[in-house]
Amino acid sequence: MSEFDSKALADHEAFQWKVAVHSKVPLDSKDDLSTYYTPWVAAPCREIAQDASLAYKYTWKSNSVAVVSDGTSVLGLWNIGWVAWLPVMEWKAILMKAFADIDAVPIVLSTQDPDEIIKTVEHISPTFGAINLEDIKAPECFYIEEELNKRLPIPVFHDDQHGTAIVVLAWLINACRVLERNIQTLVVTISWAWAAWIAIANLLAEYGVQTIRIVDSKGMLYEWREYMNTYKQSVVRFNTGNIQWNLRDALSWSDVFIWVSRPNIVSQDDIRQMNENPIVFALSNPDPEITRDEALAWWASIYASWRSDIPNQINNISAFPWVLRWALDARIQDITMDHKLAAAKSLAAYVDTPSDVKLLPNPLDKRVAGVVAQTICNV
Amino acid sequence: MSEFDSKALADHEAFQWKVAVHSKVPLDSKDDLSTYYTPWVAAPCREIAQDASLAYKYTWKSNSVAVVSDGTSVLGLWNIGWVAWLPVMEWKAILMKAFADIDAVPIVLSTQDPDEIIKTVEHISPTFGAINLEDIKAPECFYIEEELNKRLPIPVFHDDQHGTAIVVLAWLINACRVLERNIQTLVVTISWAWAAWIAIANLLAEYGVQTIRIVDSKGMLYEWREYMNTYKQSVVRFNTGNIQWNLRDALSWSDVFIWVSRPNIVSQDDIRQMNENPIVFALSNPDPEITRDEALAWWASIYASWRSDIPNQINNISAFPWVLRWALDARIQDITMDHKLAAAKSLAAYVDTPSDVKLLPNPLDKRVAGVVAQTICNV
Repeated sequence: MSEFDSKALADHEAFQWKVAVHSKVPLDSKDDLSTYYTPWVAAPCREIAQDASLAYKYTWKSNSVAVVSDGTSVLGLWNIGWVAWLPVMEWKAILMKAFADIDAVPIVLSTQDPDEIIKTVEHISPTFGAINLEDIKAPECFYIEEELNKRLPIPVFHDDQHGTAIVVLAWLINACRVLERNIQTLVVTISWAWAAWIAIANLLAEYGVQTIRIVDSKGMLYEWREYMNTYKQSVVRFNTGNIQWNLRDALSWSDVFIWVSRPNIVSQDDIRQMNENPIVFALSNPDPEITRDEALAWWASIYASWRSDIPNQINNISAFPWVLRWALDARIQDITMDHKLAAAKSLAAYVDTPSDVKLLPNPLDKRVAGVVAQTICNV
Repeated sequence: MSEFDSKALADHEAFQWKVAVHSKVPLDSKDDLSTYYTPWVAAPCREIAQDASLAYKYTWKSNSVAVVSDGTSVLGLWNIGWVAWLPVMEWKAILMKAFADIDAVPIVLSTQDPDEIIKTVEHISPTFGAINLEDIKAPECFYIEEELNKRLPIPVFHDDQHGTAIVVLAWLINACRVLERNIQTLVVTISWAWAAWIAIANLLAEYGVQTIRIVDSKGMLYEWREYMNTYKQSVVRFNTGNIQWNLRDALSWSDVFIWVSRPNIVSQDDIRQMNENPIVFALSNPDPEITRDEALAWWASIYASWRSDIPNQINNISAFPWVLRWALDARIQDITMDHKLAAAKSLAAYVDTPSDVKLLPNPLDKRVAGVVAQTICNV
């Protein structure tokens, strides 16, 4: 165990847990009991029974988000079993509080069956104003999110997909400002693994990126390839020529490589396949596919990883709190492509003068939420 | 709408919601992000993956309770539909915080199917240290609680049943101290309606009450009667002679009548059937079966209702927060009859000198939790 692991354990143990509940109302007199409990709590109950939308007026539904995970894809730890990912879910909850004043509740599930997950989330959904899905593996996460969005009258946001896509696009927009490159003409290769690759590809394409190559462990995706599924089929349109390259081929003459994969799998030879001064995203978490030092030494011009302790962090802290803040405030049912595009543009524009070590706002800057949420509201 | 209703609505609207989430850890630096989030949050995750019991050390599992309801039996409002009972569940959550420092989360369900409720609670259970079921109607609540207690490694407590039984016994113990009556020889009639009647009958019998008559809308329960079910069968042992009385007959020569039923159904003639100076529990909520003034005018010696604004309130505020506090701290799997008995005795004993207007501790007395929880620990 590293000294960092030991320190993290000691700090977690000292606080015992990270997220807590408190009361907003006074509890000092019999009058308080009468007003907020029996007999007069019946008044708001009766009002809501008449008109369900009044739950937003009289309960925390206007400000509450369930952060739900089945633990099948936690950080780079993958499927680590029930409960073990609760520390991460607690963290997501306190971030939502700190950055967007949302009351979020971590919920870890003891089922990994997609239909059971859908039913469970549906059953608890009246409690909440929005659902944030977290760390659910692909391809199940696509089906779960789609189905829940169909069934529920509140927004369902799978952060690993869309939060990641938003920050990747914002980061790339600013990388192009710094490097004086035209984002539309970049050749972008995306390696699949966890949930984010389809969302990233779709959002980059929507923004105008013209050449996107998508690769899995069997090579580039194309229409009649083996080992396809509905979700992989949904992005074969990016391979109009049905090119049948392997990973190394796909890297050739690429300008950008976005890895959302596993630690330490990228070699110097991989990077050397790419066009000069490539842009490298190594988004495996917590350990990246390639270190910053290696990538820069092997001619990468600029490098992004998920880690807080390496410059130019890319992290969906910069997206999900205020996307959900806005979704709650606007009381929308669905978070659309237009909303996500506006979010990415606004996040990039928030940084007046991006540099090669600072492409996104400081994740601790608590003003970002308000500014960016406002921009999406205007979509 | 009464002026009290209007005031309650205005107060609820002013606070918007009653329960909120906050962070216990600092969130001020990149170091904080690294420690509590990526990359080092992986350390407690890995530890818990090795040994699930460490979730109690590193997460809020040691202090969190889900307050779950399907809304089928809310106060005296009965089945008022999804979401409408969220104000009550929020209230339960803040009581647990105020009186027992528990982090409780209100969860209202969009299903009223018992098997779906069981599966949903089972699926979200890894998140919590205990489950508090609330406002679920009988007889479904019996099956749901039984089945969840079988399936889950954490305690499941249906407050409407057992919280009520504990406070009813404690109240009756102290009423007998005040009236100088022998509790064991009292004739007790219990009218069924919501969930509490079986739990009350069993707990009183366990304490030593020898004559208990149980009545539903068809009259007293006996072995070969029509309109029975498993749960009613489980208490026919109290009617050893298989007596076939109606409600009015059952009241004859009763010393105690415990109503857990509907507002304003008790007449002067009903009370007049009873033995002299009867003890009257009118536990319909928020409006009792009979008012205090009527009951006392019609020769009742002492009167209990659920309401905070009437003397001698009986309310499970006085039970569930510290029963759950103790269950979390002792990390037990089941709350047994012995525990409930100890809880009732300890709660009664907490009041040094009970009087006919003060039989239970002030529900706002925050020291009760610690004292009573300690007593149960010694069982």
